[in-house]
Amino acid sequence: MTSPAQRWAILDGRRVPHEGATVHVSDLGLRRGFAVFEMFRVEEGAPLFLEAHLARLARSAEAVGLPLPRGAEGVAADVHALVDANALGVAAVQVLLTGGLSDDGVTSRQPTCVVTSMDVPPRAAAPAGATLVTHRHTRELPEAKSTNYLTAMRLAAAIRTAGAIDVLYHDGVHATECARSALAIVIGDTLVTRREGVLESVSMTNLLALARERMRVEERAISLEELHAADEVLTTGSVRGVVPILAIDARPIGDGTVGPHARALFAAFAAHVAGYVAARRGAAASATTSASATGR
Amino acid sequence: MTSPAQRWAILDGRRVPHEGATVHVSDLGLRRGFAVFEMFRVEEGAPLFLEAHLARLARSAEAVGLPLPRGAEGVAADVHALVDANALGVAAVQVLLTGGLSDDGVTSRQPTCVVTSMDVPPRAAAPAGATLVTHRHTRELPEAKSTNYLTAMRLAAAIRTAGAIDVLYHDGVHATECARSALAIVIGDTLVTRREGVLESVSMTNLLALARERMRVEERAISLEELHAADEVLTTGSVRGVVPILAIDARPIGDGTVGPHARALFAAFAAHVAGYVAARRGAAASATTSASATGR
Repeated sequence: MTSPAQRWAILDGRRVPHEGATVHVSDLGLRRGFAVFEMFRVEEGAPLFLEAHLARLARSAEAVGLPLPRGAEGVAADVHALVDANALGVAAVQVLLTGGLSDDGVTSRQPTCVVTSMDVPPRAAAPAGATLVTHRHTRELPEAKSTNYLTAMRLAAAIRTAGAIDVLYHDGVHATECARSALAIVIGDTLVTRREGVLESVSMTNLLALARERMRVEERAISLEELHAADEVLTTGSVRGVVPILAIDARPIGDGTVGPHARALFAAFAAHVAGYVAARRGAAASATTSASATGR
Repeated sequence: MTSPAQRWAILDGRRVPHEGATVHVSDLGLRRGFAVFEMFRVEEGAPLFLEAHLARLARSAEAVGLPLPRGAEGVAADVHALVDANALGVAAVQVLLTGGLSDDGVTSRQPTCVVTSMDVPPRAAAPAGATLVTHRHTRELPEAKSTNYLTAMRLAAAIRTAGAIDVLYHDGVHATECARSALAIVIGDTLVTRREGVLESVSMTNLLALARERMRVEERAISLEELHAADEVLTTGSVRGVVPILAIDARPIGDGTVGPHARALFAAFAAHVAGYVAARRGAAASATTSASATGR
């Protein structure tokens, strides 16, 4: 049975059956890996932090030189159309902007923008820990969320064998970021995360605002020594949220259990998401009420 | 009007109309840039150096961890089927192996192999010169011909504005290779090209064999000083063949005209291609004669 989240897709603003969301093999997104994307969570029908994700999509598109044909407003309309079409409650949504067809194999004639959704597990009530493996690698273009995951895909079997949730990249001296999540460490009462030279993370930006209310926050490079000696390590992702990291390359972090700061930040993040959802639902309800009241 | 070269494509061994050669947006080739490919020239219906291209495809697939579902023989059969279906004389053929669909967004359930063809200009009778621009960049995985051309695509407008044919990558000290072609320089009577840490080039491998008959050949790193001071510079590509480089970043090479070694190597390469085509056509004709004679 097809999942309801995979009933419809929005392809260049048009609703199409999910199975029909295809691109030609000549699309520059496929032929030349020329594509950027966003992936985010939907809770109770509300696409979480949609404005921030679409702002990042626009910056990614600019960084690689792809136009965003219908603008951030057009993409937002596509996302809401998909939420409605698939009656999404809890889901993940992907917005993919590809180079599209080209007359010379290089220049985009007209980018393609496709919005799809998929089922994801409900958010955990308590923070479950996970593990990471590391790999020496510098991302080609950290300022864009491009579809280039070549190194992560090559390592997929090794990551799976290690039972890890993701791979953490480093340059031999400093940790940078995970392939699919952002990294922070806790030293005493200080949360440390790196913002320069890594992909801007919507979930980490949200978490930092919450962390500043309860602890010191430093934005700077993290050495591999600091990483392994940290009291706590955590990652954030737009779909997974806050994930405490209990071991890296099979070396335990702290005592190898979920620490108090990760626990508190997990709870604060969950409350923040709930507040965001309530506000969006409140706004939608009052818009509906107001529409009914005025007969629109 | 559709070009005859774009009438049919071969998708996982099945002939489909070229327009129907599509993949789903969930294909790992699109979502995660997880794909490798080959592109080569067809002359008089003979796919040039097909065995070498398919051997490299198998090595690329192995380097990224993608299985080659139908084997090199299966892909060769697809290529010949496309040559027949589109009655290809002079054309370029692309074999694209993508990650295909995935249950977990990472693991390939079944790769997709699609073979398409496109028109290309006939090979030039005389060597026309071209220019390059340079960019500091190290390829993520030079041992695989992956579809990751993110940096080259970002630079596409700058390359076009400069009137250059390609971008030459360097690490600040040494030149490596161009985004879409292999590099060699001539110093006196010596041809120098780098083979370590760059994509294995089918056309350069062929050219080196020809060059060894007429000059010294060194396989080693090329410094940027050597590059700019070289007597001649040339690139090779499977579709374009031997291209003399007359200027790099607007600085002329030698006297800025096509040099004698590039001219001789261009002619030798053209004769080598003609010999390859004649041998393949001879083999095909004798196979046909033999088949008729035995009534098969």
